[in-house]
Amino acid sequence: MNNSMKIYFFGSIWGAQSDREIVQGLLRHLRTKGTVLSEHLFTEEYKNSEHSSPKEIHDRDLKWIGQSNVMVGDVTAPSLGVGYELRDGVILAKPILCLYRPQEGKKLSAMIDGSPGITVERYQSLAEAENLINDFFMELHR
Amino acid sequence: MNNSMKIYFFGSIWGAQSDREIVQGLLRHLRTKGTVLSEHLFTEEYKNSEHSSPKEIHDRDLKWIGQSNVMVGDVTAPSLGVGYELRDGVILAKPILCLYRPQEGKKLSAMIDGSPGITVERYQSLAEAENLINDFFMELHR
Repeated sequence: MNNSMKIYFFGSIWGAQSDREIVQGLLRHLRTKGTVLSEHLFTEEYKNSEHSSPKEIHDRDLKWIGQSNVMVGDVTAPSLGVGYELRDGVILAKPILCLYRPQEGKKLSAMIDGSPGITVERYQSLAEAENLINDFFMELHR
Repeated sequence: MNNSMKIYFFGSIWGAQSDREIVQGLLRHLRTKGTVLSEHLFTEEYKNSEHSSPKEIHDRDLKWIGQSNVMVGDVTAPSLGVGYELRDGVILAKPILCLYRPQEGKKLSAMIDGSPGITVERYQSLAEAENLINDFFMELHR
């Protein structure tokens, strides 16, 4: 593990239970790659005890994106906040990996799928997502 | 109506039927204020006949945002694309009005609610939203 590698993790905070389990698995795996700046946002404690104002949350998350070396996350569930963060990362030229679990009758937004600054990878299982993360970090370190 | 005023309208394209009716009402009202660059995206014909690649859609929508004088739309339904577009508009310092219909058990993303570059207004009925749009354009023209 490389402690100097700062990872900004993103995903819908209010997703379904099945999504939350995958998110926890992704976070566990990312911790082996570096420091995950945003990981406490994805705990139950956080969701129940956030007292910051929206402006404070907005400014803190953008600051973390600015400090990060790489952005990795899940875009299976639609999310205004994740979309907002992704455009920021693209403009800052951060390496970005979006993991997407295809679902019947749904389609990934063209703004994400068609963004030249974003790598989109499809997955079905957590193991598959972990391999995609490994490959992405391997490329980064070339 | 002011033909030289270019409006970029945003909203979830894949929302529920009730949302779609509100979207059509908002578009009707915005047409009295200027030219709505993105309005054909919200027709049934468009959704069934879009043959552009995600990259073409991405680039075209960002071009329209760049050309617009103002961005107005609905953020009731979560959407990756809308979040992405909003961050772009904020960075370009476009005047932005986000209309949000509060819903039981849901919360607007702090990235939108807390963004210093975005005006968020809550509404319940289309008539209320129309008044909020009128007020926003009145301020613009001051």
